[in-house]
Amino acid sequence: MLTVAVCMALLGCLQAQALQGHVSIILLGATGDLAKKYLWQGLFQLYLDEAGKGYSFSFHGAALTPPQQGQELMAKALESLSCPKDMAPGHCGKLKEQFLQLSQYRQLKTDEHYQTLSKDIEAQVQREGLREAGRIFYFSVPPFAYADIARSINSSCRPGPGAWLRVVLEKPFGHDHRSAQQLATELGSFFQEEEMYRVDHYLGKQAVAQILPFRDQNRKALDGLWNRHHVERVEIIMKETVDAGGRTSFYEEYGVIRDVLQNHLTEILTLVAMELPHNTSSSAAVLEHKLQALRVIQGLQKGNAVLGQYRAYSGQVRQELQKPEGFLSLTPTFAGVLVHMDNLRWEGVPFILMSGKALDERVGYVRILFKNQAYCVQSESHWASEQSRCLPRQIIFYIGHGELDHPAILVSRNLFRPSLPAQGWKEVEDQPGLRLFGRPLSDFYAYSPVRERDAYSILLPRILHCQKESFITTENLLASWVFWTPLLDSVAHEVPRLYPGGTENGHLLDFEFNGGHLSFSQEQPEQLVPGPESVPRPSDFQVLRARYRESPLISAWPEELISKLASDIEATAVQTVRLFGRFHLALSGGSSPIALFQQLATGHYAFPWAHTHLWLVDERCVPLSDPESNFQGLQAHLLQHIRVPYYNIHPMPVHLHQRLCAEEDHGAQTYANEISALVANSSFDLVLLGMGTDGHTASLFPQSPTGLDGEQLVVLTESPFRPHHRMSLSLPLINRAKKVAVLVMGRTKREITMLVSRVGHEPKKWPISGVLPRSGQLVWYMDYEAFLG
Amino acid sequence: MLTVAVCMALLGCLQAQALQGHVSIILLGATGDLAKKYLWQGLFQLYLDEAGKGYSFSFHGAALTPPQQGQELMAKALESLSCPKDMAPGHCGKLKEQFLQLSQYRQLKTDEHYQTLSKDIEAQVQREGLREAGRIFYFSVPPFAYADIARSINSSCRPGPGAWLRVVLEKPFGHDHRSAQQLATELGSFFQEEEMYRVDHYLGKQAVAQILPFRDQNRKALDGLWNRHHVERVEIIMKETVDAGGRTSFYEEYGVIRDVLQNHLTEILTLVAMELPHNTSSSAAVLEHKLQALRVIQGLQKGNAVLGQYRAYSGQVRQELQKPEGFLSLTPTFAGVLVHMDNLRWEGVPFILMSGKALDERVGYVRILFKNQAYCVQSESHWASEQSRCLPRQIIFYIGHGELDHPAILVSRNLFRPSLPAQGWKEVEDQPGLRLFGRPLSDFYAYSPVRERDAYSILLPRILHCQKESFITTENLLASWVFWTPLLDSVAHEVPRLYPGGTENGHLLDFEFNGGHLSFSQEQPEQLVPGPESVPRPSDFQVLRARYRESPLISAWPEELISKLASDIEATAVQTVRLFGRFHLALSGGSSPIALFQQLATGHYAFPWAHTHLWLVDERCVPLSDPESNFQGLQAHLLQHIRVPYYNIHPMPVHLHQRLCAEEDHGAQTYANEISALVANSSFDLVLLGMGTDGHTASLFPQSPTGLDGEQLVVLTESPFRPHHRMSLSLPLINRAKKVAVLVMGRTKREITMLVSRVGHEPKKWPISGVLPRSGQLVWYMDYEAFLG
Repeated sequence: MLTVAVCMALLGCLQAQALQGHVSIILLGATGDLAKKYLWQGLFQLYLDEAGKGYSFSFHGAALTPPQQGQELMAKALESLSCPKDMAPGHCGKLKEQFLQLSQYRQLKTDEHYQTLSKDIEAQVQREGLREAGRIFYFSVPPFAYADIARSINSSCRPGPGAWLRVVLEKPFGHDHRSAQQLATELGSFFQEEEMYRVDHYLGKQAVAQILPFRDQNRKALDGLWNRHHVERVEIIMKETVDAGGRTSFYEEYGVIRDVLQNHLTEILTLVAMELPHNTSSSAAVLEHKLQALRVIQGLQKGNAVLGQYRAYSGQVRQELQKPEGFLSLTPTFAGVLVHMDNLRWEGVPFILMSGKALDERVGYVRILFKNQAYCVQSESHWASEQSRCLPRQIIFYIGHGELDHPAILVSRNLFRPSLPAQGWKEVEDQPGLRLFGRPLSDFYAYSPVRERDAYSILLPRILHCQKESFITTENLLASWVFWTPLLDSVAHEVPRLYPGGTENGHLLDFEFNGGHLSFSQEQPEQLVPGPESVPRPSDFQVLRARYRESPLISAWPEELISKLASDIEATAVQTVRLFGRFHLALSGGSSPIALFQQLATGHYAFPWAHTHLWLVDERCVPLSDPESNFQGLQAHLLQHIRVPYYNIHPMPVHLHQRLCAEEDHGAQTYANEISALVANSSFDLVLLGMGTDGHTASLFPQSPTGLDGEQLVVLTESPFRPHHRMSLSLPLINRAKKVAVLVMGRTKREITMLVSRVGHEPKKWPISGVLPRSGQLVWYMDYEAFLG
Repeated sequence: MLTVAVCMALLGCLQAQALQGHVSIILLGATGDLAKKYLWQGLFQLYLDEAGKGYSFSFHGAALTPPQQGQELMAKALESLSCPKDMAPGHCGKLKEQFLQLSQYRQLKTDEHYQTLSKDIEAQVQREGLREAGRIFYFSVPPFAYADIARSINSSCRPGPGAWLRVVLEKPFGHDHRSAQQLATELGSFFQEEEMYRVDHYLGKQAVAQILPFRDQNRKALDGLWNRHHVERVEIIMKETVDAGGRTSFYEEYGVIRDVLQNHLTEILTLVAMELPHNTSSSAAVLEHKLQALRVIQGLQKGNAVLGQYRAYSGQVRQELQKPEGFLSLTPTFAGVLVHMDNLRWEGVPFILMSGKALDERVGYVRILFKNQAYCVQSESHWASEQSRCLPRQIIFYIGHGELDHPAILVSRNLFRPSLPAQGWKEVEDQPGLRLFGRPLSDFYAYSPVRERDAYSILLPRILHCQKESFITTENLLASWVFWTPLLDSVAHEVPRLYPGGTENGHLLDFEFNGGHLSFSQEQPEQLVPGPESVPRPSDFQVLRARYRESPLISAWPEELISKLASDIEATAVQTVRLFGRFHLALSGGSSPIALFQQLATGHYAFPWAHTHLWLVDERCVPLSDPESNFQGLQAHLLQHIRVPYYNIHPMPVHLHQRLCAEEDHGAQTYANEISALVANSSFDLVLLGMGTDGHTASLFPQSPTGLDGEQLVVLTESPFRPHHRMSLSLPLINRAKKVAVLVMGRTKREITMLVSRVGHEPKKWPISGVLPRSGQLVWYMDYEAFLG
């Protein structure tokens, strides 16, 4: 479903595109670092490539500096423009002369300045008998200046009807989801979506810009390979040797995740993971598929990342930012993050994103490693690399630097011979002795660009040609922040592991994953900054066994508690199936059981799921597909990961005849009948309950008298919380169970836990106090916070 | 659920075990090869180890040869008995003298011979004032002799009450499931299960016998690793350099699968894959868990194996078996088989079983390779093998031979330091230069037995001590044949790939898997034996487009047809979800759609399952969990592999109130209501139909008038085939669909296909002729066999 915003933007773009003519390019921040280093050169290249193809140009270097001084600074910046190697120097010199004539400095500070610029452009166009095609404003300025400039452009410098406006923005685009949203809203009040081009210069790196074309041109070979059945892992890596010295005022605010992962590496991730549109030259399709990919990335938690900080960093911050003696920064300069995609293509495939400063080498690459699905019969010493399917098979988009020192695309020769555009890419000559990714270079089909070009010279023409897929739309930007912000929040107070820097890091930063969890491979050595994580726990880590309300109590830290409960349930299930062939398990909803569901889903291989019937203890009167439904939680965290036969799953019939819990639909009675029919004596083998802070259990509330006694097995009840209508097993039914486990977790339960420990059998006040299986066993599972406070 | 047979056997065994005394061991075939090579030595070792520990012994070498001649032959066999290296020669010499005195030859040919033996044993026991503990008959004879010997033992040589009987049997235990069953039944008429010890001598190989103890002693380290999340693959390998020359009379009957895979490699497979019992010294628990493991192996088909035959084999067969000039054997001498276990622990983990003759080296091993779940930040040249989690992590049970040339257990040092019994196993000294499994020996914790022992000297005491877990029970044997027989049947006429033998094989036998499918990595080179597989197909492989009954027809070979249909359904689904947010798909049951389900389950990553509703076209009136239920097929082949929300699945309500399709339960009406409520206009987006040889479609039969017209959307019908009662969408409902696809496959459909092509609209005679969507599209998908015959 193509979103309306993207659609409109592209429509506008295409309409505008049809009209050529004169283009004014205004470079804001014309004398700044970025402009001097890349942008002027990129504009010159644009001029060389595009002038005379239906466009004419004028270039306006702009800044706050008064005209004369600015003019001088700009002239200096332009002095160093270089000619392409493959162009005759004389010819290029002439063109450079023309380019300099078309480029002029102007001070842009007030609305009047902008009005004057607008009038000047109009006058020039008219004077020269041209048609104005459009104006490009390139914001090479700090983000705090964006709003004023945007306002001025919008109010005083828009081109007339029939000509387009494009503004080019450089990161940072916010600091988290909220600030990015704010900035986007602000910009959105001045510009249309179609008018904004957010630059991520990694999308202009030659190897990165080639990812989609490569996937498209090698569609046939990749079609069967590009999925979880064949890909073992994807590594998206950007290593730096430099540190943040000299830039700490910026870096201290951002850190490595915001600086590299949220933007560059995420863009690359989406290019690799996205479904390939049929037509990769459709900007709309590419952007839409990228957005879809962003949206199926599994949410990140603290446990999905490892963070580091090079040892000298805090000292640099103290020095550069005049911090006090004892100041220690928590800003990470190294991060490894494990990402999973929640779709059928990539389910289970680890995407490893890693970047850091002060590492042993400077290199950037995307590496797709394929699974070894071969067995080579001959003894290993006889394997010939070209023929052996047992040697690694990989595709690498080598962004640059590293041992190869130029961009490249590498495909293992035991994979397939790739197709690359012959005019832009050439085969790399072998360099004997050079090993990359565990193999000699000769093991790869290796290609590099015929002409190395910097990212800006790739991106600038794409702005002119309206190739929006090479830029970040508002939707995609916000989707990326939606993904990264929870992780950033959760690690904000984490203490990063300190590393010495350079080759001395050794194996200190190596990390590994287990399920979705990421951790450093080596134990933490000495750590200089004590953090909240190092609060000592009781030395007695063992599970505590006691009694509570005259029944057995098991207490532990949350992780151990869940693990113990899961093992106990499994043991009961195995034994019950052994004896009776079936296991009837009734589960509660809510948040506490989620960890239990996850534990059962991933760690219990011997659980007899095929013989287990799953019942609900209670349900909210919402459709089963509603995110609030207890069944949804069960489905998302347990059912999707195990193999329970469809007919062993028994959701509560809260939604009959398109109505929710209508008395006249007899849903409660239907469920009761189902129980009576399938569960011997209506006696569940195990019922898992929770306890609310008001003493409720299942959906039996103190305020609602139903279900506490009587004959009814299943009842409709009223909750004081939304959604009010509930369906629940009744207390008498619960008390027929062979085993009841009550799981209570978290500090908020402390008070009710203390209270309930002292009260007698008073189910009308505290329904939980009525839980006492007639001939079964009751066991309380409480974490230390709930039990000990 | 411990099976009764195993339970009884073990109970008997344990009772008997309590009583010690005199044991008579009768070695049948005492002068044969196996006896000479291993068994006498094993018995001598048994005597050295066990005499004086409560047992006394007598050894009876037996054969058909008359006494004097037999005595001489046996004396010759006993001459070469050797003393253990760690025993003082003098002491051993004395014991050897005693052993020879206790060993005597006797002819066992007639029942009288057996009676005499029995009386002699009784007389000896009485004479020496001993108590008879039991008798062990070791069948070292060809299987055709089994029945007569067994009959004689049973009728004439059973020990008296209070003493046990054990018979030891050597493979082959049958040729396929039927013959194994027959043999087992025959033996079962003479012996109790507890009395039979079937030898697989691989279970006595030191490294194999250590698998379970190793898993047990390293339980803590392995607990989290021994599963699909961590194991990348398991290789169970037995390579030989010798060929079958001189043994072709046996080999031609059996081939490599029966000779090695069905027994040795399968036993090892179960030891690796089985759930580890809490008590590994419980024979009953071990055998039961092995049986469970055998039962969850996924069934094998032709596509799960690759077969080879060394080039010289057919010539050897011609020569040794006097076959005619042109005779070519199809017996495989090489097999690679891919096995998957259908449980949560191992789902998706490839178990590779491989064995062959005339290969480049002699070696046997089990290799468990763990997934690389680490990322090493430092550039590769700096990885230290002990610390780097990025280097391979593996556990190898090295059975013997190969470059190491002795049994060993190897554990990568970056995994954990294993615990092994200190008295039996010692650390292996490093051999610089020796590389195993891609790494230097020094990368492993490596252990080898303090004393190398042959398999028989390990197994013989286990017979005496009733350790049944080291032998093959009838149940386990038959379970193994149940697993292997379908594969053996399916490849019986396959032409194996010819290989030159030795190191010349190169990469010719390398194989690889894709999903469950196994194939040689290299294209077939020249092949000498033309087989049924090489029947030429039409050169035009493309999908044929034509018209049938005035609607579009797509025809192709089965694989291409299924692939085209799956793509078409996916395209329709994607487009429908894009437009309407949902896709309503009604599927037929039966065998043809299974391949389609599998294709959809494994190859279609962009299929919008989360937005797809699945309906049934028809259903048999059986419980949903019945193997005959259409829903079962859908669940097994599609639902378990994709992620469709529970509430998007709509099985037909054929089973209400514990009754099947009772009129008064209004199941058909209930389903119709569900359709009306969820499917706009009751118009499915796509209905997949089949066509029966009688022209029926859905469950609308020529003989049953219901459902062909009228208002009813869902109807109960009668099938001429069992189960007779059915529920079906009606023809009017089907014809409301936006798209109807009819899938027709196989030669048996040829006649009806021709007939139906000529008839008009006659649904009462041929219900399929009534399929004509009112405003939707009808497309026929027929494979060439159905369409072209």
